[in-house]
Amino acid sequence: MDFLAEFEAKINLANQFLQKFFLKKENHQMSVYDAMEYSLFSGGKRIRPVLCMACAEMFGNAEDAMPFACAIEMIHTYSLIHDDLPCMDDDDLRRGKPTNHIVFGEAMAVLSGDALLNLAFETVLNHSKAAPQLVLEGLKIMAESSGTEGMIGGQVIDLESEGKQTDSVTLMAMHVHKTGALMMAAAKTGALMGGGSKEDVLNMEKFARYLGVAFQIKDDILDVESSAEILGKPIGSDKNNEKTTFVTLYGIEQSRKMLEDYTQNAIDTLAEYGERAAFLKELALFLLQRDR
Amino acid sequence: MDFLAEFEAKINLANQFLQKFFLKKENHQMSVYDAMEYSLFSGGKRIRPVLCMACAEMFGNAEDAMPFACAIEMIHTYSLIHDDLPCMDDDDLRRGKPTNHIVFGEAMAVLSGDALLNLAFETVLNHSKAAPQLVLEGLKIMAESSGTEGMIGGQVIDLESEGKQTDSVTLMAMHVHKTGALMMAAAKTGALMGGGSKEDVLNMEKFARYLGVAFQIKDDILDVESSAEILGKPIGSDKNNEKTTFVTLYGIEQSRKMLEDYTQNAIDTLAEYGERAAFLKELALFLLQRDR
Repeated sequence: MDFLAEFEAKINLANQFLQKFFLKKENHQMSVYDAMEYSLFSGGKRIRPVLCMACAEMFGNAEDAMPFACAIEMIHTYSLIHDDLPCMDDDDLRRGKPTNHIVFGEAMAVLSGDALLNLAFETVLNHSKAAPQLVLEGLKIMAESSGTEGMIGGQVIDLESEGKQTDSVTLMAMHVHKTGALMMAAAKTGALMGGGSKEDVLNMEKFARYLGVAFQIKDDILDVESSAEILGKPIGSDKNNEKTTFVTLYGIEQSRKMLEDYTQNAIDTLAEYGERAAFLKELALFLLQRDR
Repeated sequence: MDFLAEFEAKINLANQFLQKFFLKKENHQMSVYDAMEYSLFSGGKRIRPVLCMACAEMFGNAEDAMPFACAIEMIHTYSLIHDDLPCMDDDDLRRGKPTNHIVFGEAMAVLSGDALLNLAFETVLNHSKAAPQLVLEGLKIMAESSGTEGMIGGQVIDLESEGKQTDSVTLMAMHVHKTGALMMAAAKTGALMGGGSKEDVLNMEKFARYLGVAFQIKDDILDVESSAEILGKPIGSDKNNEKTTFVTLYGIEQSRKMLEDYTQNAIDTLAEYGERAAFLKELALFLLQRDR
């Protein structure tokens, strides 16, 4: 398997479907479509849709999962728009471009974030062709993962931790929610839509949980070791915001070790799927080695 | 029928179910539950859930519609929290109490709004006992009504109209989206969950469209004729914000006439339902005469 070629193909498919599902209208409220489009197509890594598609392919085919893959990317995008707001992290730059509120103003940034969360549900409701009971099950996974017991919960813990020394339990809870929850939702809805069994769905959840933590540890390492040019945003921002990260809490060496351990744990959960899981295994290794 | 007693009973039932569906957890992220609870239980008029319940009762029973009735009230509440933010309308007072961001800070207000929109979907997904296909149909109505082609669209038009002279077509488009869309969603999901036919659902949509416009005209009239004590928020705020309203565009006399006409149009759509529609008719008249 040529991992990079397949990864690229999946990213392209995700972008195609995002374009298809994001219907921009020419009407009174078209300005909000511009703001939504700006962030939705500003060079995101598309990790979540790719994860969703790959999990679906293990048990069936990727296309059945596309509405969920794209919906979860919309939720991820809205969370970044709101996270970047002046009252939140106050970030001016994301992926090398001015953040949404810098371009469209704060009010429109709030509304376009709201609209993307809303559109995520519309996307599944309008485009999923699976059996009604299955669609409802997938929606439930998605809604719980993005809500107060999922991603939003993680943002709350993050907000409450600012300027404080955070302990390891809280740091882990924050990232399992903030980053992990949507990754788990992507993997679970993918497995579900692909026709995986209950056990398969649970296995994919476990895989994505490890992957999510590894992803965040890598992010924290990159924040001290990468450059602004490569990351597309200022480095050292965690330190400047006095945020507790895996690096500030465990040091860089221990963080590297943890990153490897979590990546290995993720890969171990795939053992029973053998060759079928080759892409997911490569994806975990790719995320471990990424430079941005 | 003792309208006021029945109205009160419906409001109480809505509040009971909102309490039941709003499960506050004691965990890392409990602060967001406090902020959500504050706005969700701060004396809202509960027009939307009552409308939903009443439409359901016309064709079946109100309890089947409770998840949607409460979900739509959560969406309404989130929209108020975000609308009040400094970057939006910058309001300090709502229903006689400090607005969400005044009490919990802007960041938490953004997140608690996000969380309430998310919770609306979770509520239906976790609590609706209707057939899967019907739940999906209701969710689709709800999601479209709250999105860019519905309520959010209305907020965008509102935002874009600030400080400008708005024409009558734009003013109507704004309110049909901003206020009307969720009322229509309440009426339609109510009729749908109660077992109404496609035609019934369309009739209830028509009723709610007229009612929504009437409701907004009344709001505009109250903004010049009521007092801050009764409204629980400053009067004259439309004028101060240089907003175009029905009153600034048509004058007070013509606005009163329009209010009566739209209310009558709403009532006329109920004709074929006779006595079964008695509560909805009284509700329209009550909203016409309200003083806040």
